[in-house]
Amino acid sequence: METKIATSPKVILVGAGPGDPELISLKGIRAIEQADVILYDALVSKQLLQYAPKHAKKIYVGKRSGNHTLSQDGINKLMLESAFNHGTVVRLKGGDPYVFGRGHEELVYLQTFGVEVELVPGISSAFSVPELQHIPLTKRGVSESFWTITGTTKSGRISNDVKLAATSDATVLILMGMKKLPQIVELYQQQDKGDLPIAIIQNGSMPNERVGIGTIDTIVGIVEKEGLGAPAIIVIGDVVTEKPEVPTVLSPRRIFTQLNEN
Amino acid sequence: METKIATSPKVILVGAGPGDPELISLKGIRAIEQADVILYDALVSKQLLQYAPKHAKKIYVGKRSGNHTLSQDGINKLMLESAFNHGTVVRLKGGDPYVFGRGHEELVYLQTFGVEVELVPGISSAFSVPELQHIPLTKRGVSESFWTITGTTKSGRISNDVKLAATSDATVLILMGMKKLPQIVELYQQQDKGDLPIAIIQNGSMPNERVGIGTIDTIVGIVEKEGLGAPAIIVIGDVVTEKPEVPTVLSPRRIFTQLNEN
Repeated sequence: METKIATSPKVILVGAGPGDPELISLKGIRAIEQADVILYDALVSKQLLQYAPKHAKKIYVGKRSGNHTLSQDGINKLMLESAFNHGTVVRLKGGDPYVFGRGHEELVYLQTFGVEVELVPGISSAFSVPELQHIPLTKRGVSESFWTITGTTKSGRISNDVKLAATSDATVLILMGMKKLPQIVELYQQQDKGDLPIAIIQNGSMPNERVGIGTIDTIVGIVEKEGLGAPAIIVIGDVVTEKPEVPTVLSPRRIFTQLNEN
Repeated sequence: METKIATSPKVILVGAGPGDPELISLKGIRAIEQADVILYDALVSKQLLQYAPKHAKKIYVGKRSGNHTLSQDGINKLMLESAFNHGTVVRLKGGDPYVFGRGHEELVYLQTFGVEVELVPGISSAFSVPELQHIPLTKRGVSESFWTITGTTKSGRISNDVKLAATSDATVLILMGMKKLPQIVELYQQQDKGDLPIAIIQNGSMPNERVGIGTIDTIVGIVEKEGLGAPAIIVIGDVVTEKPEVPTVLSPRRIFTQLNEN
């Protein structure tokens, strides 16, 4: 470690949104503009780095990089060192820092060392990705709530919450769950919900977005046939069929004229 | 209705975020910049209207305005008329259009009439408001999911989902639920969860933000004493106690020096 110490060590945890670089908040951009160091994750658009000052160090800490994988401890220490050595650190995370993003762990760690921490929420992929596919999260008379669950728990087992969720009328959103899809399907089949609609959305909000829609009974086959994989959001519930087929429309002028005649 | 018809009627449904005008997305700002008409809700910061072109009509359609309350049907019709008469309409909604925002109903209605609809997700208050209070939504070993429920159903009754949620280990986020707080408390007490932590956050992300924290058994008294009311987010679960007390810190320099010595 260097011995130079920044007088105002600060870390800003910024949610970069679901992937589309225009879905970051204005506050997030302003944070990047004042960064001395940026630590960015795998699912963050590199286009966002253009907002950084020329002197800013840009460090990739994504867990997908084969050679340079940093553990969470490593990231924590790097944030801390960067803040003390350089001043303002922006920790740029995909989606929202607090939606399965370990943002809270990072905040607590940094505060323990007396570092000022600011939070800038992001647009979570959990709901924005279904939304961009025009799948509502709730609908009066169909679903009154949505339940967001991680498919990847500390122990590696599937969360017990998925089991309870399968008995509920809630729309269920599962993040990081593609490897557990067969087990998720089984939990729903045990509730006789083989016909329940389910959607898989891979690379949501991005140009390479791909979607598979089926039922609990058919989705594993669809995923295999289409070659769908992580990163993806799993949406389970009757709301999936509320996604409208955009009809071949009459000319707007003609429809509007008809509307005025009625 | 006027008879002039815009050649490209279009509506952009934009989520304005939880209230802080810097928590709108860049894409949301760019939508406002190209608007011919803006229809904005009660919880949207008026500062966002500054991005509109000079010629743009700005129409308040918030449901809180005593004299000018517009029904959902009225808003739908106004969007449609505005799009056909003026071109690009931005429908600016608090939070995210698809998180209990009726955005999907509006999209389907407009598409029926052949109007092009674009969606710009927003930062939902459901998770960003707890986050800004440093309350995590989940925490390894404490909670593996969060369940977002509306307190206000079509029929006016409390959602059955709250009853099931009270039996679960999920962090529960209830929007528009302040009037139902005593009933919510009762459902948790029936599960012997009187000691479960709960937080009420009113006007989250805004300068007039107020917070009440207690347990299921104490929260109604706290709300009465503090005079907390809508708009507010209710957060129920052990994660509430993960909100750190920011300690009186040693000087960062001293802590960092200690860290390097160890």
